[in-house]
Order: sequence, then structure tokens, then C-alpha cells
Amino acid sequence: MLTRTSTQSLTGQLADRFSERIRNRLLAPGARLPSVRECARQQGVSPHTVVAAYDQLLAQGLVEARRQRGFYVRDSAAAGGGLETASTRSTPAPAPVPLVAADASALIRGMFHRPSDKPQPGMGVFPSDWLESTFMPAAVRRVTSSKALQELSLQYGEPAGDGGLRRSLSTKLAGINVPAAPEQIVTTIGATHALDIVSRTLLRAGDPVMVEEPGWALEFARLEALGMRILPVPRKADGPDLEVMERYCTAGDAHKPKLFVSVSVLHNPTGYSLTPGSAHRVLQLANRHDFHIVEDDTYSHLAPEHATRLSALDGLQRTIYVGGFAKILAPNWRIGFLAASPALVGRLLETKLLATLTSPALFERALAWCIDQGQLRRHAERIRVRLDGARGRTVKLALAAGCTLASEPAGLFGWVDTGVDTDALTQRMLDEGYLLAPGSLFHARRPPTTLMRINFATAQDATFWKVFARVRDQL
Amino acid sequence: MLTRTSTQSLTGQLADRFSERIRNRLLAPGARLPSVRECARQQGVSPHTVVAAYDQLLAQGLVEARRQRGFYVRDSAAAGGGLETASTRSTPAPAPVPLVAADASALIRGMFHRPSDKPQPGMGVFPSDWLESTFMPAAVRRVTSSKALQELSLQYGEPAGDGGLRRSLSTKLAGINVPAAPEQIVTTIGATHALDIVSRTLLRAGDPVMVEEPGWALEFARLEALGMRILPVPRKADGPDLEVMERYCTAGDAHKPKLFVSVSVLHNPTGYSLTPGSAHRVLQLANRHDFHIVEDDTYSHLAPEHATRLSALDGLQRTIYVGGFAKILAPNWRIGFLAASPALVGRLLETKLLATLTSPALFERALAWCIDQGQLRRHAERIRVRLDGARGRTVKLALAAGCTLASEPAGLFGWVDTGVDTDALTQRMLDEGYLLAPGSLFHARRPPTTLMRINFATAQDATFWKVFARVRDQL
Repeated sequence: MLTRTSTQSLTGQLADRFSERIRNRLLAPGARLPSVRECARQQGVSPHTVVAAYDQLLAQGLVEARRQRGFYVRDSAAAGGGLETASTRSTPAPAPVPLVAADASALIRGMFHRPSDKPQPGMGVFPSDWLESTFMPAAVRRVTSSKALQELSLQYGEPAGDGGLRRSLSTKLAGINVPAAPEQIVTTIGATHALDIVSRTLLRAGDPVMVEEPGWALEFARLEALGMRILPVPRKADGPDLEVMERYCTAGDAHKPKLFVSVSVLHNPTGYSLTPGSAHRVLQLANRHDFHIVEDDTYSHLAPEHATRLSALDGLQRTIYVGGFAKILAPNWRIGFLAASPALVGRLLETKLLATLTSPALFERALAWCIDQGQLRRHAERIRVRLDGARGRTVKLALAAGCTLASEPAGLFGWVDTGVDTDALTQRMLDEGYLLAPGSLFHARRPPTTLMRINFATAQDATFWKVFARVRDQL
Repeated sequence: MLTRTSTQSLTGQLADRFSERIRNRLLAPGARLPSVRECARQQGVSPHTVVAAYDQLLAQGLVEARRQRGFYVRDSAAAGGGLETASTRSTPAPAPVPLVAADASALIRGMFHRPSDKPQPGMGVFPSDWLESTFMPAAVRRVTSSKALQELSLQYGEPAGDGGLRRSLSTKLAGINVPAAPEQIVTTIGATHALDIVSRTLLRAGDPVMVEEPGWALEFARLEALGMRILPVPRKADGPDLEVMERYCTAGDAHKPKLFVSVSVLHNPTGYSLTPGSAHRVLQLANRHDFHIVEDDTYSHLAPEHATRLSALDGLQRTIYVGGFAKILAPNWRIGFLAASPALVGRLLETKLLATLTSPALFERALAWCIDQGQLRRHAERIRVRLDGARGRTVKLALAAGCTLASEPAGLFGWVDTGVDTDALTQRMLDEGYLLAPGSLFHARRPPTTLMRINFATAQDATFWKVFARVRDQL
């Protein structure tokens, strides 16, 4: 919040706030700033202060004034510090974005760039104190003894990833009935990299891909950046909408989907999990129309043991299984993996080598130890119990704040209906130091919506919901 | 070598050797196995043994017999364990490869998968004992104290990479006259990832890209996998062939190159370094025809201090600088980076996030300490002195073995003319436990050539050159 006791003037504080938001893409190029009157009211300052702040942004080249229409974020402003090359100059300006709307990559950056020290209900991960443990430092000490350290550091390492970790993962996957020999497993730089490798291996620019909607913004953004044609499939409580999938599959050869990207278990953002019947029908469709499925099981460690995975039913014939440890153990270790059929795994490994060569083996070996000793399993159990408590408290607070839940609460995320446009809400809550995850981010076309995703672990905070209710009522 | 005292039969040993080579892509799909008579002679076994070994490969589905023409590696053999999915079955078989030739990705895999314990003259890195140091474990201990470890592991970390490392790199780059603020730097999973990020950000499938030839196989393979049109530019002693570049640039709008990929200093495989005059003319051409340049400075630490970089002349206007630490410090830490103009760096960062989210910060911080303390600089000096000695000895041995040097020896690699086809030589030397880097790997179209690349650090071994001379003379 703006403060009169600060060493910096109110004008400077306001200009800085907008400039930071523009640079971090939390205000998209083409977005309109609030009108001077509106902004003055929201911030509790005089219109004169707002005009002076907007003038500073103008001078910095971050916004432009359009006659009678107000101030807009400049197209090139978010690209960097305002310098332009010949090639960016020649790009025509896109159509203006009608709303003050967060850019698709904004939340992704926001995940790493917390706007304040407050708990962040829009975050995608657990607070770091939830992840603290004594076994993790112990595991790292084992792999950083002088001998192990030199041995693991001074060569490129195994292309498919540390052999010990791949054996541990193979055993772990057998426990959820996914049959994968260590040779069918490739470690990656987080699950993100695994999904990227799968798209790059199986798809060419222009290929149609089915993606669940709502779904994870990063997946839409990556597929778009790779030039793929996104075919959104509505995600329902029991699984993807099979009628819509069938329609895509029968729309003619030029439209035939090559791949279906699915979070079967504890789907992000709804928390839905696939039923066995739906899984069976999805696989029948895939066999009939010959497309691959990549199953993103990022939330695996938070799921009940009997959860249904496509990869288990299919036996990794046309499914590729993707997992990771950012949610449950250590986001910065960046360890993920994929498991695929023997026929496909060589091609996937080649894409890994082309993209990054090998992956750092030290943490891979430390992770193997955590799995083999049963430490990770016990840690996940503790976190599940703690999350159950947090979920109960958060749901109560959300309901009390006048929200409704769009899906049965499960896992890490809640899919919450606020009753107001969540893009506008997100901008106003940023003023208060809170980063939300507006529902539009989870859609390929980003329509305005009253939904938002909350993190049950970080939203169990009465102060947040009080601020939320006040800001929402002011909209 | 095959041995009669082994517990395994000669047939089994021979079949295993071929099967391993096929699975590791050191024998490409479509490649013809040596004739029975030829193989029997090469291996010093009876034709009966060879026939029995080939029958085993046939039974394993790795090769197929073609009437009157011998045995060929099956198309799907290298993809995995011989299982096929519906989609690989429907792929038509490509034209047969006329020679027993190593696949383009074979050497890359070979780099990680040493065929024996012998020194490997085809390797791209220093032997690990050259890289041993006491400062590296000390640096790791600093970042793995319990507090630092938890702090760095349990959050995703900064999107652009550890701030401390980016400041160290900024200072380091200033030392070679490349002006890059920490905000213009993005850390990556090795230099490979940096080059991948640049291609993905600046190019769309089908775009023409100029690449130096001879050049690094991985770069050709990646650009091909991304669907780019590769325009080879002959690399000469003073720099790239400007007439060829000019011709590409003026061939019409549809052919206009978007990017030029260059190793200016200690070019791989020739060891050439760019002259200031050539650098100036390359940049003039880039300005006139509006293409970007990515300068891969992987061998920076082995170069003399006055070496000319395009990025220094250009001030990172249309150049993107790429560096890494796999060659000089720790291959498995997988730390690379890129530096670009403020206008471009935001887009490059976005591609990093889409591909891998963040990168592991612990080693980044350890590396920063090694740089800041001057340890890395002193370590590089020691390695340069040691390499100078090795280079002198290796050159003498190569000349004595009847080779000539195709370029003035410099840096890590020698570009050596053997007088015989190096694809065939590579296959035969594998029988002896040596992995070579045949010249065809360094060309986009892989023509047969008598050149090969040697690593001066690993080729200063009289036994290798004795075996080399014997095998060459038998060809």
C-alpha cells in the first residue's frame, strides 16, 4: 500500500508500482490504466498525484496517452528496459486489450516474484516452511562428500539421468501400477521440461493438440509458442468431455489431434480426478483415432493411493507418464521425469540431449536416497494430513467471504467463484500485496470469468479474506 | 576386442558388440553390416562365427537380411527394445544408408557413454582428472550448509537465475568488453540450453538459419529437429565465408536468413578464431540484412585474452552472447548463460520459463563464489598451460602417424586429415575400444570425409596412435 511516511513521495510510489507491474507483465501490453479519477479513489490519493505518476510512466516510455481514451501500456514496454531493436520497431502494434488484464505469463513469473511477504493464495506451490525437513539436507550431504561430488560433477553423466534414481522411480511407478523399466525412464529439468520434450518430439508446428480446459496456463503458453493448434477439451468431474474429443477426432484428417495433454489426478485448477470408466473410454478413443496421451501426474504425491491413471490402464503403450518433485520436495532442484514405451523413449531422450544435454545428477542421486529410504513417502503423508486441515479452514473462510466452490475441494487447489470479474480483482488485490490466480489464465482464449484458483495451503488466512471481501465489494 | 578366454562365446561377444552399437546409434538405421568375409577378417574369427552372430541379431529384430545384399540395421531397431507402436509401424522405411555410418546423434551419446576405459580422442571435454580441484568442493560446502540449502531449494528461485551469479557474470563479461548488466543475463541448463532458447525465441519452423560448416553436430541436429532450414556457411581461418553469407542474404525475401550461429573463438572443430576485420564485416552484413547473431563462446576460458568477439564489437545490439562452464569447471553442473539486449532478454527469459521454469540455483551460487574469489580464473590458467603441453605432444604423435593438420593447432580440438574415410575408420576403431569423431559429423549433409576431430588432451597417447595406424592401414 502507498504510505505517507515513506521516504519516497506518493507520486514516486505509485509510478514505481505501475512500472514494476508492467515490467513483470502483470499489466499486459495494450492494457488500459485505470482512469485518473478511478485510480485516485482506489489508492486514496489526490488526482494530482495520479496525473504526476502517469507522467513519470510516460517519460519512462512504459505507457502512451491516447487522446480522450486514457493511458495504455506500450507494446514494447514489457519486453525490457524500453530499448528497441530494428526488428521490434517494425512489428505492428496489436489490437488494444480492452481490460486491465494480466498477461498469460504474468502469473508464471508472479509465482517466483512474490509481490509482498503476505501469504499468496495464487501461488502454485506449498509455502517453503511446509517443505522443510531434516532428511533432505542429510541426502545432500551424502552426494556432496568430496569423492561423490567430483565423481558426479566432472563428467556429463548418464544421458537418461542417474541410473539409481531411474531404478527408484521404476519401483515407485510399479506401486501405482505403471509398468516402466529403468530404461523407459528419462529424468528432466522438472515436469515442465518433460512436457516440453514430449511436445517437441511428437508434434510439428501447426499440429492439433487437445488440452484440458480449464488447465495450466504454462501448458497453453508453451504449446502456443511452439506454434501448435490448441483444441480445448472441457474438463468435467469424472474426466475430459468425451463428446468434444470425439468431435475433434472425426473432423477430418487435417484436424486429427496428435496428442492429448491431461492431468488425470487432482487436476489443476479444479482438483478433479479421473474415474476408471472415463479413463477406459479415453483410451479407447485414443486407440481408435491413433493419438498419444501425455499424463501429467504432478500432484501424484497428494493423491489417494487408489487414484486412476491412464498410464496404468494403458501400460504405457500410447501414454507417456510425467512426474515431478517440485510440489512435494524441493522446487529448485528441478527434478522431473517421463516414462514411455521402449519404442518411444529413445526419441524422447534425443530431444532431451538436443535441448539441455544431460541433467544435474547430484540432486537426482540425493532424491533417489530420499525415495529408497522411505523418507519421501513419510514426508508426503505428513503434508497430506496438514493439507487436509488447511483445506477445511480455507473452505470455511472462502464461504464466509461469500464465495462458492465450483468443484468439490481436493488436493492443493480450490476453484472458487467470486461473483466478480477476477482479472479486475487481481489488479486491485495486487495493490494490497496479494497475487491472485484469475480464472482467465486457465483458458486458452482467456475469456473474462468470475472464477479464480486458490492454494488451500496459503489461503487459510483470515486477513486475506477480509481484504478480499473489501476490495471485491468496491469493484 | 573379442577374447577366447571370456566366459562368453565368440559368437555371443560379436553379437553383443553389434547389438550395443545399434542401440547406442553408433550404427545407424539402414546401415549395412560388414560382409561375413570382411567381418571375419577384421575380427580374426571364422566366417561361421560371424554368420551365427548375425543370426542372433536377426532373431533380436535388430537387423534384416536383404537378398544378395547382406545385413542391414532395421529402421526401428535403434528406437528401443524392438517393440513397436501403431504409429511407428506406419512410418515408411527411409532409403537405405549406403555406408556403415555413425548416426548424427551417435557421437553425442558416445560423449557420455565411453566404449572403454581408454583415453577417448573423439571426446568433447577434458578428462575428469584435469578438472579436479579443491576450490570446487569448498564452494559446494558453502551453498549446502543447512540454512543456505533450505533457502535455495524450497522455492522456485529467480526466473533469470541466481542474482549473485548474474552479477559475477556481468563483471566477467565486462573483462572481455561485452557490456551486459545483470538484468541482461539469463542462466540456463548449460550452453546447449541457451542456444536452444535463442533458436526457439527468434525462429519459427521453416526459417532459414546460417550455421558455420564444419560445425558442432548437436547444433545441426537441434535446428533440424526444430524444422529450420540450415544454410551452411564455410568457416575459414579468419572467420565465416562472407561471400556465401552475402549470397544467402540477397537470394530473395523467402530465403532471408533470420539468424547466424557462430563460434567466433576457438571454433569447434577447427580451432580458428575470428579476426577483428572479419568480425566488423559480419556485423555490417547483419545490420544491412537485419539478422540476429548468436555467438557461442563455449571455449572462452581456453582463449587468449585479446580474442575478438562479435558481441564486444556490436555491444549486444543484435548479437546474443552464450557461454558455459561445462568445459572448464563441471560438466554435470549444467550451468550456461546468455546475454542479450534489454529489448530481447525478456522474450528469451519467457522461453526459458516455458521450457524448464527456473534452473537449479545451488550450483549457480557455488559458481558465483568460484568466479568472485578468482579461483576459476586461476584454474583456467593452469588448464591452459597443461593443454599447451598436451597439444604439442599430440601434434607430434599425429604427424608421426602420417596425419596432417587441416588447421593451425589451437585450443582443445585438432582438425586432422587421416587420408582415409573416417566413417569407416570410426567403426573399426570402436572394435578396438576407441571412439573417434569423424568429420562427417561436423557437416549438415554428412558427406564422407578423410578428416576427424581430435581432443588434444585425450589424444596424447602413443598406444592410441599405434592402433590408429594399424587399423587405418588395414582399411
